[in-house]
Amino acid sequence: MSLSAMQAHVARDEVKTSLVVDILTQKFGERCSRSKAMCEQHGHTTTWLPNQAPDAVVFVESTEEAADVVRVCAEHKVPVIPFGTGSSLEGHVNAPGGGISLDLSNMNKILQVNAEDLDCRVEAGVTRKQLNSYLRDTGLFFPIDPGADASIGGMAATRASGTNAVRYGTMKDAVLGLTIVTPTGEIIHTGGRARKSAAGYDLTRMYVGSEGTLGVITELTIRLYGQPEAISGGVCPFPDIESACNAVIATIQCGVPVARIELLDTMQVKACNIYSKLDLEEKPTLFLEFHGSDAGVREQAEMFGSIAEDFGGGEFKWATQAEERTKLWTARHDAYWASFTLKPGSKGVATDVCVPISRLAECVTDSMTDLEEAGLLATIVGHVGDGNFHVLILVDEADEAEVAKAEGFVERLNWRAIELEGTCTGEHGVGQGKMKYLQREHGGGLDVMRSLKMALDPDNIMNPGKIVKVS
Amino acid sequence: MSLSAMQAHVARDEVKTSLVVDILTQKFGERCSRSKAMCEQHGHTTTWLPNQAPDAVVFVESTEEAADVVRVCAEHKVPVIPFGTGSSLEGHVNAPGGGISLDLSNMNKILQVNAEDLDCRVEAGVTRKQLNSYLRDTGLFFPIDPGADASIGGMAATRASGTNAVRYGTMKDAVLGLTIVTPTGEIIHTGGRARKSAAGYDLTRMYVGSEGTLGVITELTIRLYGQPEAISGGVCPFPDIESACNAVIATIQCGVPVARIELLDTMQVKACNIYSKLDLEEKPTLFLEFHGSDAGVREQAEMFGSIAEDFGGGEFKWATQAEERTKLWTARHDAYWASFTLKPGSKGVATDVCVPISRLAECVTDSMTDLEEAGLLATIVGHVGDGNFHVLILVDEADEAEVAKAEGFVERLNWRAIELEGTCTGEHGVGQGKMKYLQREHGGGLDVMRSLKMALDPDNIMNPGKIVKVS
Repeated sequence: MSLSAMQAHVARDEVKTSLVVDILTQKFGERCSRSKAMCEQHGHTTTWLPNQAPDAVVFVESTEEAADVVRVCAEHKVPVIPFGTGSSLEGHVNAPGGGISLDLSNMNKILQVNAEDLDCRVEAGVTRKQLNSYLRDTGLFFPIDPGADASIGGMAATRASGTNAVRYGTMKDAVLGLTIVTPTGEIIHTGGRARKSAAGYDLTRMYVGSEGTLGVITELTIRLYGQPEAISGGVCPFPDIESACNAVIATIQCGVPVARIELLDTMQVKACNIYSKLDLEEKPTLFLEFHGSDAGVREQAEMFGSIAEDFGGGEFKWATQAEERTKLWTARHDAYWASFTLKPGSKGVATDVCVPISRLAECVTDSMTDLEEAGLLATIVGHVGDGNFHVLILVDEADEAEVAKAEGFVERLNWRAIELEGTCTGEHGVGQGKMKYLQREHGGGLDVMRSLKMALDPDNIMNPGKIVKVS
Repeated sequence: MSLSAMQAHVARDEVKTSLVVDILTQKFGERCSRSKAMCEQHGHTTTWLPNQAPDAVVFVESTEEAADVVRVCAEHKVPVIPFGTGSSLEGHVNAPGGGISLDLSNMNKILQVNAEDLDCRVEAGVTRKQLNSYLRDTGLFFPIDPGADASIGGMAATRASGTNAVRYGTMKDAVLGLTIVTPTGEIIHTGGRARKSAAGYDLTRMYVGSEGTLGVITELTIRLYGQPEAISGGVCPFPDIESACNAVIATIQCGVPVARIELLDTMQVKACNIYSKLDLEEKPTLFLEFHGSDAGVREQAEMFGSIAEDFGGGEFKWATQAEERTKLWTARHDAYWASFTLKPGSKGVATDVCVPISRLAECVTDSMTDLEEAGLLATIVGHVGDGNFHVLILVDEADEAEVAKAEGFVERLNWRAIELEGTCTGEHGVGQGKMKYLQREHGGGLDVMRSLKMALDPDNIMNPGKIVKVS
């Protein structure tokens, strides 16, 4: 499959790698695994890109152990690939040059919750669902929700966000401080617990979204929020994509602090109706959620209702009961899996463009025309308050012509978004899959990124072959 | 005065500098000034640190011109110091190694306002008040408000914030994209107009807060907000600092989306009463502002009122009329100048620590005890929702013993904040004045900052002697 052409070549040295694996086996015993199944599972994710297995997987239990692994690898210039839960989508954990997969899933302790400061400190392997169950009785919650039950460390590494970024921001906003193992195996701390700081370069934001290519995130201090007093939500169908997008623009301009505002295209609604046993009208539909006081959420919903009416939307179906709401949002979260009901046995190719919200309707409708012309079947869901949407193309892997069509579509979509002053990735990250779009998106900025990478990881051992190519 | 000891030594080469000034005079004519008055005015700010004048000031009118200046300086390894309005407080625009002050104040065009996307593109010299007058009729506003009418470029360079950061964030959050002249005189663009992106290293956040040491910010794309439908506010006295801080913690935990929540200590209230002709009770006092719908601001104010009562605060005095509100907030903004009424002829030494909000009361009261023991007169204002507060020490410059006492206090305050998991600077930046605190605050992170600086500006021409010392 030609998608492997996206994968950067990374040199490997069998002798050194084998030596490093021996040293790590001696140090970590059974926690250093070279079993084929384990390595393959760690060389792949929910991505569409071909598997590239590491030579061994080491399960570390502390920052010091992670630093120890990196030091051994650094000494012999062998790649280190940090691994959380493996839910990334762009081949972030593939090991194109072999090396060591550094599995942080056992670093899953919640170290400190500071209710007064609305923050907490966690190890990188803590997952967002684990954290939220732990927080349930404190009245606090961690809002960032990328769908998958990803590790918080992995979410920071890929600058993840999801359905409620429109209100609560992305991992860029959620992280206050980090513990990092540098490419030489030093342990450093960035940021702190102060809400804001102007004390020098923003290293925290430099590591957030660096996808393990500048160091390993082992601990995080992150922001929490008070659980809203009231939550309400519902769904609202629109005659077309444009009206739905215009309603979203008006909603945000009016300052309605909507917590979630998600677009599902007609195909996606169809798929959700089948998969999640809903009976939604088969039209472009917004899923909404409001957080606030009782009076506040009522007011927000009323304001949205009247805006929706102006744009031909309706009827706005309320989900006042928690179960109804859970059913709807479970359906939204299962949208990915629901899509396959439209073409059983197919593989999904996910995309992730994000454009200024004023260009969203244009970008979505042009892409729908493009899909139709290419004869591809796809569903679309969008974090539409941010201008971010995902086309999931359903492809028969055995059909080479269809695969080629899908690849062509993905390319055109990414160029289209960049033309519209947007980005090829709103929240999935670059990994291997998006590297080829960065030159056009960043121009000379890509050289600055390369300088950063070369300054901080001159031997290119940290997750090589991702984000930027270095010689 | 021993404060000059804080200023890093930067080598200067008279011959090369003189050559560069000649070249720039030929290129820019009268827009390259070497007049003593002009140079001195550009080598100083509202800072307490001694003046260090550049050799010439060049007034550029475009990104290309800025790049041209940097290229000439780069060729001859002569320092370039970007200059906005000169309102920074930590010696950011001083020229310890001489060189060229790059004045961006004529780059004051508002290039584009995208109302649908709630963003705009401005040249770096546009000031925040200029932008807000321009926006008045659009229903939008730019919220970041550091007090001074700073340039937006300078505000980004120092990661500024101010009174409403508790609701709207800091310049870290406000900037979507930047045009940068790199230390070699290349022009690059970072970020874009998409609301979020995961496309590689976050160069935008790397340049925000870099204080001109990694490149020159010449244009910015920044986020705007809809003007709130309703604004209300008021003042509330408390029996002591601790009760006031606890009321703030509770307010934020309850999710009241307060737009401003500012603490003034008793001395500051006294000074404001005299200077701004108010008749506030002379107690620790919170100034508040609420933004939202009519019902929303009413609800917020009621929630705050009931919380304040729990902590012994009151009576909460409403300012429902716009004039009353303006009078109060003008007084708050004039607090700096008001302080001098307590000791006419004195000079103010400003501080800027920021701590986790749970440690704020402790940090403020310990500092008050320290002031008393040192026999220093000072006022305190705090952006208390963020845990950030400013002690303004009123010092007789001619009294060396008093100056020494003030210096000792500033040091202890900064160490205290760092001990409490905070920072020596919440929003003023490092400049020259805070460099010596960064080792303890960042530890090994400071080495990473140094690597960044050396990778991107190997000849150390960009605002040398600020943030990190490089050999």
